[in-house]
Amino acid sequence: MGEVRAKRMPRAVRERQMLDAAVRVFGERGYRAASMDDIAELAGVSKPLVYLYLNSKEELFSACIRRESAALVAAVRAGVSGAGGADRQLWDGLRAFFTHTAHNPDGWAVLHSHARTGGEPFAVEVTAMREEIVAFVTGLIAAAAREAHGDPALPDREVAGLAQALVGAAESLAGWAGTDPSVTAKEAAATLMNFAWSGLGNLMEGRRWSPAPGA
Amino acid sequence: MGEVRAKRMPRAVRERQMLDAAVRVFGERGYRAASMDDIAELAGVSKPLVYLYLNSKEELFSACIRRESAALVAAVRAGVSGAGGADRQLWDGLRAFFTHTAHNPDGWAVLHSHARTGGEPFAVEVTAMREEIVAFVTGLIAAAAREAHGDPALPDREVAGLAQALVGAAESLAGWAGTDPSVTAKEAAATLMNFAWSGLGNLMEGRRWSPAPGA
Repeated sequence: MGEVRAKRMPRAVRERQMLDAAVRVFGERGYRAASMDDIAELAGVSKPLVYLYLNSKEELFSACIRRESAALVAAVRAGVSGAGGADRQLWDGLRAFFTHTAHNPDGWAVLHSHARTGGEPFAVEVTAMREEIVAFVTGLIAAAAREAHGDPALPDREVAGLAQALVGAAESLAGWAGTDPSVTAKEAAATLMNFAWSGLGNLMEGRRWSPAPGA
Repeated sequence: MGEVRAKRMPRAVRERQMLDAAVRVFGERGYRAASMDDIAELAGVSKPLVYLYLNSKEELFSACIRRESAALVAAVRAGVSGAGGADRQLWDGLRAFFTHTAHNPDGWAVLHSHARTGGEPFAVEVTAMREEIVAFVTGLIAAAAREAHGDPALPDREVAGLAQALVGAAESLAGWAGTDPSVTAKEAAATLMNFAWSGLGNLMEGRRWSPAPGA
C-alpha cells in the first residue's frame, strides 16, 4: 500500500508541475509561440515525459484551459460569502475575481487572450467557462432583485442582459489591469462597483433610465 | 477619360463585392473554415481574380477586419450627435453601436470572434480598433464629468477604467444579442444604459459607492 501511494504522489505532483510550467509559458508567449521544450525545461522534466503525461501540445493547452477555468470559477464562487445585501455580494464577487486574475496573470492570459487566438476548439472550451460565470452572476442578480422587491420586477431577459454586461465589463477591466501593474485588484473592483452598482441598485428599486421622447 | 473611368469603376465595385462576400463567408464560418472558392463564388468572380485583387486569404481577412473596424468606428462617431447632455450622448452612441452590429452580424462576428480565433496577427489589428473606441469613449466620459462639475473630479485613471468597463459591457451584450435574434438593438442599448447610466451619472455628481468598513 505504501509503495502504491509513493508511486502515485509523484505522478500527481509532476503533472501539476508540468501544468504550472505550461500555464506560465502559454500565458507569456501565446499558444503557437510556446514550445514543448521550454515547458519541459521549466517543469524540470524531459520532453518525452510531458508527452507521456499529456499527449500533445493541443491536449496540454486544453488541460491548462480547464484547470484555469475551474480555478477562476471556484475563486469567484468562494468569494461570494452569501452574507450581507446584494451590493456586498457583488463587491465580494468582484474582489475575488480581480484578486484571482491579478495573482494568476498567466492563467488569465490563457483564458482571456490565448484560448481564443489559439483557434476555435479552444475558444469553445473557454466559452463554456464564461457561460458558467454568466449563469452564476445571473442567479445573483435575480436573487438580489427578488430581495429588493423591485416593482415592476426585473424580467428574466433583462437580468440575463445585465449579467452579460457585468461579466463583459469585468473581463475588459481585468485585461486593462493586466496591462498596467499599478492598477490593484481592489481599485479595479471599486471602479466596476461604482460603474455598476448604482445602475443595478436603481433598477432593483424600479428606477429606470429612459430616453427623452423621440431620442 | 470616359473609358478610364469605366475601367476604374468596375475595379472598385468588384473589390467591394469581393469584400462583401468575404465578410459574409468569414463571418459565418470563421477564418480557417472559410474557403477562397466559396468567397469567389459568392462574389460572382473567378478565384484567380480574388487572388489578383487581394493577394492571399490572410490579406483578404485583414482587409475585412480593417473595413469592418472603420465602419463600426464611423457608425459610433456619427451616432453621437453632440447634442444634449451626457446621458443623451451615451444613449446615442449605444444605439448607434447596437444598430450597426445588428445590421452587420457577419462584420461583427469577424471583429468580435474570428479576428481573435484567426490568430495573433489579426488579434493585433482588432485590438487597435478597440483602443480607438476606448479612447473615444474615454473622451466622452471625461467631457461629461467636466460638464457635470463633479467634485471631487473624476481622476483620469478612473475615467479610463470606466471606459474599459463600458466598452467591455457593450461587446458582451452585442455578442449576446447576436446569438438571440429576438433581442433588438434598442433593447440591448436600453439594458446597457440602465446598467451604466445611473452608475456613471452618480459618479459624475460625486456620489460613490463604498464598501462597509472591513468589507
